Amino acid sequence: MEKKSTKEFVPQNFKLTLEYDGASFFGFQRQPGRPSVQEEIEKALSRLFNQPVKIGSASGRTDTGVHAEGQVIHFFAPFNLREDQILQGLNCYLPKSIAVKLVEKVSKSFHSRYDAKRKTYRYQIWNHPVRSPLHAAQAVHIPYKLDLEAMKKGAKILCGRHDFKSFCAVNPKQKSKETVRTVFEIKLKKQGPLLQFTFEADGFLHHMIRNLMGTLVDLGRGKFTLKGLKIILESRDRTKARETSPAHGLCLMHVTY
Amino acid sequence: MEKKSTKEFVPQNFKLTLEYDGASFFGFQRQPGRPSVQEEIEKALSRLFNQPVKIGSASGRTDTGVHAEGQVIHFFAPFNLREDQILQGLNCYLPKSIAVKLVEKVSKSFHSRYDAKRKTYRYQIWNHPVRSPLHAAQAVHIPYKLDLEAMKKGAKILCGRHDFKSFCAVNPKQKSKETVRTVFEIKLKKQGPLLQFTFEADGFLHHMIRNLMGTLVDLGRGKFTLKGLKIILESRDRTKARETSPAHGLCLMHVTY
Repeated sequence: MEKKSTKEFVPQNFKLTLEYDGASFFGFQRQPGRPSVQEEIEKALSRLFNQPVKIGSASGRTDTGVHAEGQVIHFFAPFNLREDQILQGLNCYLPKSIAVKLVEKVSKSFHSRYDAKRKTYRYQIWNHPVRSPLHAAQAVHIPYKLDLEAMKKGAKILCGRHDFKSFCAVNPKQKSKETVRTVFEIKLKKQGPLLQFTFEADGFLHHMIRNLMGTLVDLGRGKFTLKGLKIILESRDRTKARETSPAHGLCLMHVTY
Repeated sequence: MEKKSTKEFVPQNFKLTLEYDGASFFGFQRQPGRPSVQEEIEKALSRLFNQPVKIGSASGRTDTGVHAEGQVIHFFAPFNLREDQILQGLNCYLPKSIAVKLVEKVSKSFHSRYDAKRKTYRYQIWNHPVRSPLHAAQAVHIPYKLDLEAMKKGAKILCGRHDFKSFCAVNPKQKSKETVRTVFEIKLKKQGPLLQFTFEADGFLHHMIRNLMGTLVDLGRGKFTLKGLKIILESRDRTKARETSPAHGLCLMHVTY
């Protein structure tokens, strides 16, 4: 006589790596009446498992218009499927603007948000007097001449462990929060008129990269000096830093766990 | 007494270099009731000069969905404006999907089509099991494994002076036409899953690159051998070659005069 398994079903935790075109969504997070990445992922998961499935969380919420090449989320599967079945199934149900690049089994305790150690974002600028129709979706047009050497020096000043309050979006509803972060690297790669700034940190405050970028661009235009940049950083005052750069230049590239 | 100039006004010929996103148009050439690049350019020129202005020609017509980073056209100005005035004026009136990159004064005899000596096109493939939302607009998704070494060897066979009739779109209305062309180079650049094929020739037949690309992809999938490719080329028979690759992977990069 066969012994019936009495082992209880333990839901498997899965880590998904996503790419998406931010232009199609009002950000990652689900919002009533507005298309979001989260809604599309949960719709696809629910179709695949034929029952409502919610995701655990994402590594962080990307804002409206921000792209991702390496967003990470996790969810608990209501029954077991192989990684390749989940990958193919979800990519079949998801709209063209979202793709699942990788599916990995992870331990029950893995949390895509709390366990994130480092994040890498890329910000793209098209720096040419004439705009580029073929780069317009993923690079911000800056027609002015930029002093790239000054911007690189400015990037060095911003690297390290600092209070980035000057570069954090002000939210009057929110109580005072921790605004100290460690920026490990800000790198610049130039391919003709296309400038790619890569930011790596242990975490970013709301709008932090877009605010840093707006300030670095004004530094590159000669609107203030490196000394001025230090004053902005040390002021811990959002009104001292420059404008928030547009969302469509930004892309979440990688999350390190 | 001042002598009044009796010099007759000679219209200045201008050469324009254009970038455009082919997704927005039914090709370059003007067609009734369908958006075209030509129509937008002529509308912008007519606004700038405040009178109807037609272009002389383009280096060639790009098909529906084909992009350009270096399309060349020419037109005769009804009155003289400086190059920078034309550049800025047109870029102001043109939709976001088209930009004028360069305006040059050229001799009266310059003809953008007849004087073109060489053209360079790029064809982009996203070669990965998972599609890429961020590359989908300008690269064709091929999920299958491709033998790139075989494709490079195939490209070498296609280079040189050949009758490319096997790769020319069949037009039953058209009488037999010259189908011999010289392909100077077919180059492959690989950036991760993104494959960029660059084709340089003294001219291309209708659909020639997309037909060459469809055949090279099938060679890379092992559907026939290098010997088979030679037979296709030598057959001078369109039905022997493979399917026309999609338009959105193709971009006119440069025209040499």
